[in-house]
Amino acid sequence: MSSVDLKWKVLFSVSVIVNFTCIVLVIIQSRTRLSWTREAAIEAENVASISCSGHGRAYLDGLVLREDGTPICECNACFTGPDCSLFKPNCAVDVDSGNPMFLEPFWKQNAGSSGVMVAGWHRMGYEFEDGTLISKQLKNVIHKLHDTVGNANTSNKYILFGAGSTQLLNAAVYALSHHTPYSSPTKVVASAPYYPVYKSQTELLDSKKYKFSGDTSSWKNKTRSRTTNFIEFVTCPNNPDGHLNKAVLQGKFARHVYDLAYYWPHYTAIPSPMDEDVMLFTLSKLTGHAGSRFGWAIVKDKDVYDRMVEYIDLNTYGVPRETQLRALKLLNVVLQGDRREMFRFAHTIMKTRWEKLAEILSTSKRFSIEQLPSQHCAFSKQVRPPSPAFAWLKCEAEEDEECHNVLRKADIIGRKGAAFGVENRYVRLSVVNSRDDFDLLLQRLQDLVSKHRSIVDGVMSL
Amino acid sequence: MSSVDLKWKVLFSVSVIVNFTCIVLVIIQSRTRLSWTREAAIEAENVASISCSGHGRAYLDGLVLREDGTPICECNACFTGPDCSLFKPNCAVDVDSGNPMFLEPFWKQNAGSSGVMVAGWHRMGYEFEDGTLISKQLKNVIHKLHDTVGNANTSNKYILFGAGSTQLLNAAVYALSHHTPYSSPTKVVASAPYYPVYKSQTELLDSKKYKFSGDTSSWKNKTRSRTTNFIEFVTCPNNPDGHLNKAVLQGKFARHVYDLAYYWPHYTAIPSPMDEDVMLFTLSKLTGHAGSRFGWAIVKDKDVYDRMVEYIDLNTYGVPRETQLRALKLLNVVLQGDRREMFRFAHTIMKTRWEKLAEILSTSKRFSIEQLPSQHCAFSKQVRPPSPAFAWLKCEAEEDEECHNVLRKADIIGRKGAAFGVENRYVRLSVVNSRDDFDLLLQRLQDLVSKHRSIVDGVMSL
Repeated sequence: MSSVDLKWKVLFSVSVIVNFTCIVLVIIQSRTRLSWTREAAIEAENVASISCSGHGRAYLDGLVLREDGTPICECNACFTGPDCSLFKPNCAVDVDSGNPMFLEPFWKQNAGSSGVMVAGWHRMGYEFEDGTLISKQLKNVIHKLHDTVGNANTSNKYILFGAGSTQLLNAAVYALSHHTPYSSPTKVVASAPYYPVYKSQTELLDSKKYKFSGDTSSWKNKTRSRTTNFIEFVTCPNNPDGHLNKAVLQGKFARHVYDLAYYWPHYTAIPSPMDEDVMLFTLSKLTGHAGSRFGWAIVKDKDVYDRMVEYIDLNTYGVPRETQLRALKLLNVVLQGDRREMFRFAHTIMKTRWEKLAEILSTSKRFSIEQLPSQHCAFSKQVRPPSPAFAWLKCEAEEDEECHNVLRKADIIGRKGAAFGVENRYVRLSVVNSRDDFDLLLQRLQDLVSKHRSIVDGVMSL
Repeated sequence: MSSVDLKWKVLFSVSVIVNFTCIVLVIIQSRTRLSWTREAAIEAENVASISCSGHGRAYLDGLVLREDGTPICECNACFTGPDCSLFKPNCAVDVDSGNPMFLEPFWKQNAGSSGVMVAGWHRMGYEFEDGTLISKQLKNVIHKLHDTVGNANTSNKYILFGAGSTQLLNAAVYALSHHTPYSSPTKVVASAPYYPVYKSQTELLDSKKYKFSGDTSSWKNKTRSRTTNFIEFVTCPNNPDGHLNKAVLQGKFARHVYDLAYYWPHYTAIPSPMDEDVMLFTLSKLTGHAGSRFGWAIVKDKDVYDRMVEYIDLNTYGVPRETQLRALKLLNVVLQGDRREMFRFAHTIMKTRWEKLAEILSTSKRFSIEQLPSQHCAFSKQVRPPSPAFAWLKCEAEEDEECHNVLRKADIIGRKGAAFGVENRYVRLSVVNSRDDFDLLLQRLQDLVSKHRSIVDGVMSL
């Protein structure tokens, strides 16, 4: 064989090997090529790849103003510009609402496992196969979730779904006031400071069956001697002040609705599982998906459960199937691996935020915040200080009766005490918002505290 | 050059060309390879590829009982077996609920454009960027939809969203009864036969502001002389009987809520756009996505709109963001191309079903159905007979006072007249269910009619 001949043979052989590898690759890629999901998947990836400088994000259903047909960046408050890169210097930081955006980065980090493809024909019918409005798979995952966290005893209890805990609050009031005689409507109460929706929602439709009757303390020791029924909202940890509230009213005429929206290791030690008659939870404060409006009730009594289901049926006919599908996906991510990743993420952020907040406020005599004890947490197996979703700020100076005005002047928008049934010397500030919001809150508080201290120092030195 | 040499050169050249093509293919495929959406897309395609014999479907969140971890087939009623291939011979056909599964095949045919990938971080916050609970893009598409179909005038009107029209019914009652003095609650009425939810929902919470007061006809001519306020539900076409109802009560004390759930070319000719103060629509009967619980209200008056928004805020805090995203996707499919494809699909099925139904019942003297006139349809530019969502069956024989029992004995489950405020001589049968359900209904009706005719013929020949 000539050397020329050999050279061509070798070259040809190499080329054939490359060909073979290449063809195998093409075949493998073609086999795993997506068909009907492809268009939606590409669209979602394109939108997700739009850069918003870390101060915003583009959504699939965002406004389309760009020439290339892609949606605009939706910026965090106080940021602006086409890619959210511009800071608005005199922008007031809005920490009025407890918008749980601090968890968004977790879901970006877990993009692959948390996305869900909803087919055009996904669960079009009114009911699930068993005739209910509730996904069995999702119900099972919720049982597993509470078993894992140890924050609620779900065994031998009924579970139903609602639009956040919002809808379930009224469903519970409806169910528990059902046998009320018209002559004496059930009194709905909560311990001040309380979540404003208890009042506004209970009063909304002017029912003959129930009536919001203010602070629990006014009715203490009056329940045993009366025939009036009471429904007491027990919020644990409490919104706004983070206390692990317990029921105040006792006796056979008092029924309790435990609002456990914040009873997660993000915000509090979990001393032991709750085991109450009616317990409400929401995805909003667990995974941060407030916009999904998904909540669930855990109910001991069959009759109360049936009445709550009746309310949901007639009010909205259940929670959208795409919401239930997404909640299932998200909770499966929460429960993957060692089942602690999201809780670690959430607690680390909340803990750090509280350390920073406490440090700034510790130097102030003008403002104080709630003091809550550390407790043993059965979930983390540690003694933990609380890291509640809200700072419940008090203006200590006599003249600062309208504390929210003091803060507003410093470009901080909080929610005033009156909304929670107490004096306006208190203001609620959200600690769960986006990092941008929290950083700005810290900075504004720091400025406010420093400014006040320098005034005090100035006066003292006179 | 030797011939051997030439041969190797040619072979090598061909191989290099194959190399080049192949490498380009691999590069192209790699570039269009999906990243974070891939897992969800594959999962969805795997589930969609599960065969359920055309009598069922597997869903992403279906129960997992198979060893390979895939969800089970959920079969149409009267079908069973792991792949839904077994017919249950003595199964009663359930046409009680108007479950709009007749549109499912349309969405399977349009799988590529109707699927939506929901990212784990999609719209986690409580509000949209403008502070509302409503997607602007979706609102714009709804305007475009009504412009296209010509069934409602939306210009200079407000649009809000709710959980199906279900939630919006009560939101409208709340808004329109807001200024009612307690001494005289607003009377909520509808023309019998009426949709049962008007009554059950209005009565649910025993409001002091409004009270369900039965059939409109009892109040006709009484409104002008009184100071009592009225809210009249006007259902057009009517559920159950398909009539294009008009408001009965007039005068300054009468307010109207137009329930236009069925005012689509699937079910009726569209003579002209509606232009009423409060108009309600739902995705359920338009695209068939009943499980999505998405509806919208078109409202003329700002004050009424604001009150309805207030109700939705306090009741559920808006429609889930994933539902709004999906509704946007689905309505964009409805409006793609010549904007008529889904309407053609829906009308063709409904028309064919009614022809078959009418043929069977035309031979019966025992049963009759509603007679509705043909009308000119401005959308299709044709004179069209109606093809309503329900057959409103009447048992003509004197002894058949409980018509639903007559049908039940023939294995047909309908909804009895009493639910709609009329006598049980009437039964509502759904015509919008899956093809399996409808075919079985036809067969059972055919058997029933034939059996009765042979009895009559037997008696006559005696």
